[in-house]
Amino acid sequence: MRSIVSFYFCYLLCLCLGIACVVFVSIWNSQWRGGFAWDGSALQFNWHPVLMVTGLVVLYGNGAVLYRIPLTWGQNKLPWKLLHAGVMLLALLCSILGLCAVFDFHNTNSTPNLYSLHSWIGICTTALFTTQWVMGLAGFLLPCSPMSFRKLLKPAHVWMGGCILILSIVSCISGINEKLFFALKGTTNGTMPYGKLPPEALVANSLGVLIVAFGLVVLKILSNQKWQRPEPRSEDLGYSPLLQDDS
Amino acid sequence: MRSIVSFYFCYLLCLCLGIACVVFVSIWNSQWRGGFAWDGSALQFNWHPVLMVTGLVVLYGNGAVLYRIPLTWGQNKLPWKLLHAGVMLLALLCSILGLCAVFDFHNTNSTPNLYSLHSWIGICTTALFTTQWVMGLAGFLLPCSPMSFRKLLKPAHVWMGGCILILSIVSCISGINEKLFFALKGTTNGTMPYGKLPPEALVANSLGVLIVAFGLVVLKILSNQKWQRPEPRSEDLGYSPLLQDDS
Repeated sequence: MRSIVSFYFCYLLCLCLGIACVVFVSIWNSQWRGGFAWDGSALQFNWHPVLMVTGLVVLYGNGAVLYRIPLTWGQNKLPWKLLHAGVMLLALLCSILGLCAVFDFHNTNSTPNLYSLHSWIGICTTALFTTQWVMGLAGFLLPCSPMSFRKLLKPAHVWMGGCILILSIVSCISGINEKLFFALKGTTNGTMPYGKLPPEALVANSLGVLIVAFGLVVLKILSNQKWQRPEPRSEDLGYSPLLQDDS
Repeated sequence: MRSIVSFYFCYLLCLCLGIACVVFVSIWNSQWRGGFAWDGSALQFNWHPVLMVTGLVVLYGNGAVLYRIPLTWGQNKLPWKLLHAGVMLLALLCSILGLCAVFDFHNTNSTPNLYSLHSWIGICTTALFTTQWVMGLAGFLLPCSPMSFRKLLKPAHVWMGGCILILSIVSCISGINEKLFFALKGTTNGTMPYGKLPPEALVANSLGVLIVAFGLVVLKILSNQKWQRPEPRSEDLGYSPLLQDDS
């Protein structure tokens, strides 16, 4: 009982931090960066942080902890598998759209792509996430997938899931840091520089702290063995907590 | 036997990646950033990335996996506890010296401190690491520490250890990304900008990739239950793998 109460406390924290991340990234880009458009301008770039934080961090993290909700344990797993796959697909689509926003903005303004460390880590994260989703679909949802393949895939899927979340956090923090140095670098248009910590910097830095806190709470939920969905059937014996290898 | 072989493969990978990180960060700062000094100049700043990567990532990661080496399992734990504490103290001293380098450089050049997201995450990481080391000393090395306190502290110590490593990686990647944007921002002195991926950018970006790979290998080693030191004594029953909560 105590374990379930502490789970729901962590889950509520996860939900609140996730909502706070989406609110902060939206406010930052609408209030201080001029809002949104899809016209190749800086307003198109603003979709990039909003979609990446919403997709690669918040939706991804919430999709990952779905199986841990005790309320779902007594029920048939298939609908939860479909929901897990659906939330992850939505997260993936947000991430891909977020990448399109920045690539299109760069191409319109003749800015090179994929040169910064942030972009290297970010593109690897999205590529891994795409691979993970396709392998998850092939291994766990297609009825023709053999049981031996599922058993082999499960620990790798769980381990890779945790790695992708860590990489997402690394990408987001380096990206927010980079954007703030670009956006608050001078005083030519009356903007206060980053070093003086204007309200925009406080909000965006706080967004970074919220993302890190959200990621650590998700990893905490995923790594607690007591909060794993009981798997009595033989095909699920290979299941192990995130960031723990039982291969 | 297969488990031990795969451990040593991972451990060798961890050692090689750690050495590569130190080599890459040293080459980057000596070859392209002008080398080292302690005179308030940019050469003093160069100690910052070298000491943070060496201390907060490489020494920290190696100190964390010490107990996992099967060769040490048949032996008395105390010398390994002292070595763990010693390596972590060295890592902490490197990190503090790395912070002194950047604070002193900023103060000499009237640059504000602790305004960027990188600095916020970095200072929290070092503060958590300091707290973790002091609590570890008080809880696991002082003979007067009560057993009930050790049992309570152990899962928190293990969990926090993993969080600090993740935060270290986040700090390092955002810092390298930030430094490259500062260092390769223009062509006024003939330096190629970051966007053209000059050799310096390739080396420093690769350093970032190596740091992420090193961190994930360390987390992989720490999270594999089969690679945990067997703890037959009652005072060690509270031990759990990194990023896994058994409280």
